[in-house]
Amino acid sequence: MTTVYDVTTWSVPGNPSATPYNDIGLIINSIIADVKSQQTNQASKPGAVVYIPPGDYSLKTRVNVDISFLTIRGSGHGFTSSSIRYNAGNTSSWHEIFPGGSRIRVENTDGNTEAFRVYRTGDPRLSSIVFQNFCLDGVSFSTNQNSYVNGKTGIRFDSANDSCRVEGMGMVYLEHGLVVRDTDALSVSGNFLAECGSCIELTGSGQASKVTDNLIGAGYVGFSIFAEGHMGLLVSANNVFPRGKSSVHFKDCTRSSITANRFHAFYPGMVNFEGNCTENLIGANHFLRQVEPFDPLKPYNNGLDDLFGLVHVAGSGNTVTGNHFSYDVPSGSVTPSGQKPTIILVASGANNYIAANNTISSVAANTVVLDGSTTGTKVLDSGGAGEFVHYTSSYSFRATP
Amino acid sequence: MTTVYDVTTWSVPGNPSATPYNDIGLIINSIIADVKSQQTNQASKPGAVVYIPPGDYSLKTRVNVDISFLTIRGSGHGFTSSSIRYNAGNTSSWHEIFPGGSRIRVENTDGNTEAFRVYRTGDPRLSSIVFQNFCLDGVSFSTNQNSYVNGKTGIRFDSANDSCRVEGMGMVYLEHGLVVRDTDALSVSGNFLAECGSCIELTGSGQASKVTDNLIGAGYVGFSIFAEGHMGLLVSANNVFPRGKSSVHFKDCTRSSITANRFHAFYPGMVNFEGNCTENLIGANHFLRQVEPFDPLKPYNNGLDDLFGLVHVAGSGNTVTGNHFSYDVPSGSVTPSGQKPTIILVASGANNYIAANNTISSVAANTVVLDGSTTGTKVLDSGGAGEFVHYTSSYSFRATP
Amino acid sequence: MTTVYDVTTWSVPGNPSATPYNDIGLIINSIIADVKSQQTNQASKPGAVVYIPPGDYSLKTRVNVDISFLTIRGSGHGFTSSSIRYNAGNTSSWHEIFPGGSRIRVENTDGNTEAFRVYRTGDPRLSSIVFQNFCLDGVSFSTNQNSYVNGKTGIRFDSANDSCRVEGMGMVYLEHGLVVRDTDALSVSGNFLAECGSCIELTGSGQASKVTDNLIGAGYVGFSIFAEGHMGLLVSANNVFPRGKSSVHFKDCTRSSITANRFHAFYPGMVNFEGNCTENLIGANHFLRQVEPFDPLKPYNNGLDDLFGLVHVAGSGNTVTGNHFSYDVPSGSVTPSGQKPTIILVASGANNYIAANNTISSVAANTVVLDGSTTGTKVLDSGGAGEFVHYTSSYSFRATP
Repeated sequence: MTTVYDVTTWSVPGNPSATPYNDIGLIINSIIADVKSQQTNQASKPGAVVYIPPGDYSLKTRVNVDISFLTIRGSGHGFTSSSIRYNAGNTSSWHEIFPGGSRIRVENTDGNTEAFRVYRTGDPRLSSIVFQNFCLDGVSFSTNQNSYVNGKTGIRFDSANDSCRVEGMGMVYLEHGLVVRDTDALSVSGNFLAECGSCIELTGSGQASKVTDNLIGAGYVGFSIFAEGHMGLLVSANNVFPRGKSSVHFKDCTRSSITANRFHAFYPGMVNFEGNCTENLIGANHFLRQVEPFDPLKPYNNGLDDLFGLVHVAGSGNTVTGNHFSYDVPSGSVTPSGQKPTIILVASGANNYIAANNTISSVAANTVVLDGSTTGTKVLDSGGAGEFVHYTSSYSFRATP
Repeated sequence: MTTVYDVTTWSVPGNPSATPYNDIGLIINSIIADVKSQQTNQASKPGAVVYIPPGDYSLKTRVNVDISFLTIRGSGHGFTSSSIRYNAGNTSSWHEIFPGGSRIRVENTDGNTEAFRVYRTGDPRLSSIVFQNFCLDGVSFSTNQNSYVNGKTGIRFDSANDSCRVEGMGMVYLEHGLVVRDTDALSVSGNFLAECGSCIELTGSGQASKVTDNLIGAGYVGFSIFAEGHMGLLVSANNVFPRGKSSVHFKDCTRSSITANRFHAFYPGMVNFEGNCTENLIGANHFLRQVEPFDPLKPYNNGLDDLFGLVHVAGSGNTVTGNHFSYDVPSGSVTPSGQKPTIILVASGANNYIAANNTISSVAANTVVLDGSTTGTKVLDSGGAGEFVHYTSSYSFRATP
Repeated sequence: MTTVYDVTTWSVPGNPSATPYNDIGLIINSIIADVKSQQTNQASKPGAVVYIPPGDYSLKTRVNVDISFLTIRGSGHGFTSSSIRYNAGNTSSWHEIFPGGSRIRVENTDGNTEAFRVYRTGDPRLSSIVFQNFCLDGVSFSTNQNSYVNGKTGIRFDSANDSCRVEGMGMVYLEHGLVVRDTDALSVSGNFLAECGSCIELTGSGQASKVTDNLIGAGYVGFSIFAEGHMGLLVSANNVFPRGKSSVHFKDCTRSSITANRFHAFYPGMVNFEGNCTENLIGANHFLRQVEPFDPLKPYNNGLDDLFGLVHVAGSGNTVTGNHFSYDVPSGSVTPSGQKPTIILVASGANNYIAANNTISSVAANTVVLDGSTTGTKVLDSGGAGEFVHYTSSYSFRATP
């Protein structure tokens, strides 16, 4: 019994014309069926590895992963910029024009929107599924290559899961790269996820997961890193570049950590807390806010103005320490016009703690602003008295000397 | 001469009945013997790679690794929770009930306690041995599945070593996962080590090593990350979840670093310095202390009370900055009853430095306590005057405003 | 059409005597030529993977990589210390004396100095080239094994490139390990780069790249991590050990981040900013400065004296927060003799921010020194009044209580 499969040598029983070049989804689903037919002993289901050599594959049929311990692995995330290429004019002299590596073109004809769906009912949760080192390419955003919209999703984990990994992957020109619901101890590390509408969306709930050591940059329509209802998420050592309507967006997350990352954005709301986000740590990150320099994308933004804050805190008991903020926007581009931009906005909540942050700004800025509903925020060494605005009387403040 | 071995295709000379399913230890020892017989030139011993495809293997005989440059590699750490399963009652309808991937059941019948032992006398130290992406499963804690005791060890490095790697491994239901003595420039990264008595124990001495980007959670009997006599250890970007009697335990360590981690525990003593620990940095970490929510494990704890500190500093010249602490314990569960819990305890030593830490607590807490023997501790912006206790007159203090 | 090549089974057309043991450069160049001959469709050039099994190979001919999406991959970085061995005297009883794994001896006879050169003209930039998990060994520093000079370079990226990766590699006894010019979104992670003159040199320009989770230690003649003209570089979670004339050297870099690293050095200038370095973050790092303990290397140093600073800031708007500094030098070894060493020197620039750093020193030290040309530096909680020296009147200072 083999447990090592190669998509280029597998024959689909009863469908000899199926190839991975025509529809790798058919191939991988057939392999999964084979694994299931061979591993029927409840006490011994080790799973398998599906290898995707470098090549140019089309996926027309969604892959349905419903077994634990399956590794789907390629040899190369194969990223190259499709955004630059689609905006480059005549590329007839270019060496190559599309992503490569172990590249799967996401071209569903089965009525589904995902290339891969991980889903199972019953117990236990699916565990230790691994996606590793291949490329999911949405190919095109159809009529407007700068729209970030094509309805395509790379990988969707659609039922509760444990100890899964997405590592070394490339995703490009998908409306949604990776979507994971109700996850536990997920690892998203070492990936190159860029030029997708959204890159990483952790939805529903989650705990004890990590998003570490990635290169990430979404489109202006979506999220670079989104997490909802998470507890104990670690977001660390990522380099998150534009565009993305935010760098990290937490919705109703608690006791999570955003540390030692580098963030670069063209809009406000770089770290954006929505709903009730409590007791999170934002520490030792570098934030850079500039304006869009690329002509084709200058028409777009995330709709937020500069009073929203580069860091927007909603909720109580959060800690913001040891971060550097560079705000580099010409005064004429600040919105609303004539206003001072906000670096850190505490929009709601009690007992937030903001200490030892430094801001360098091209224009006069308010480094910390406290909304009227907030109470007990402590603001220390994070800007001068003239850079601090409070619409509440419940706070403490010590100016940077 | 091949240097790439597959455990499923190797035949043990003189022992045709040996299979990796019966005893993978015999197989790998035989492969190592073959490598040694083929590589006899002192100037050219490149080593080999031993591949373990996904499968369900038993190890009855300890593997003795006594050559440098050996990679033992699988395709999948295969973690699934055995703790949940053993406590779940009737699991007859479950899809699967055991870990998977490249899974080795540690079932020694040779009188040894380890699945793998790395050991050699003479010079030089063993170098660049790699354990990668397979599963070591202790299977059972015998009569009490919540005891974390079965006498089994996954991997033991038992002589001085250099530049070795343990990466992408899974370990579960072992009394000891990884034990490494006298190490230099070790890398322990990207692993999933959970539901072991202890997960990582770096004993004896060590220098210039790193434990980074792991998901880790030991049992209440042992250590998630333990280091003894280390200098220059970097513990960074790990998500360490319960239980573990500590998250990180240093014994006589110096000039090491614990940064940008997320820690979650059900007991005091999350970062525990024992003996004389000097000039270490604890920075930009998130700490969460709750009480045990899982009925089967509620009877157990690590024996420490809430005066011990979430961070317990013993030794001089340590730095604790930019950390967030969430202490979420019902007042009735604080011990000793009626006492205020301690967040950071400086138990001994001179010139420790504690700055810009924030605590959110469900009960009134002492954020920093200085024992009577301590001198010269500096405590800045780490809590209010009413949250600071000093049994010494030698200190400096500035309250969070 | 295969896209998976093995150097040990490839035959060079027209050159049947070529083997990877004699000249792996010829083999890989021939493989690249084959990939190019097979992939001629501009719209579909997925690249390939070149596998180097564990073995002892010589490279006499430089490999010229001029296609995107090529992965060159081995099974083992194979580091062992050549420095210890060359200085050990009689090693005739040693088990092995050279590095191993997938080891390539860099022994060019073609007039070139590099083992690998990545270079292409025209559009687009080379993308997603991967070097993974093999060993580049310069073998010898010729007449003086402690000179770190032999004119050899491991890998040189010599034209603009995007989304490339150098991961899990070993490099040893090369004058230059990895040299990358004009890079975008480069990942250098999980490597073991040591005993090279310089380890990582990112030259020309660069953006949005990361150097994370490596073990690194250069020679006294060169750089552990050097970056020039970079924007948005993330240097995080590295363990950088001696020697290296610096741990991290930035030249004209901006808005980059050095966080959560562990640095150990035998000379001043551990983090060295040259030229105009602006708005960078140095946060949550551990610095240890000692004196050279190894007799053969005691004659050497980097030529800087102790007034240069462990951190040497040149440029404006940088942030230095939450770092620990251990300075452990006998008073008789401090230079210039009788002077107090400097921990952080602000040598030039305006509006630098230094907060919440702690220094433990074996001798009286100046924790922060501001040169006469500097303006507006803010120094908070980073040492006592007696440890602060300012040759300018434009600054603000708050002593650690």
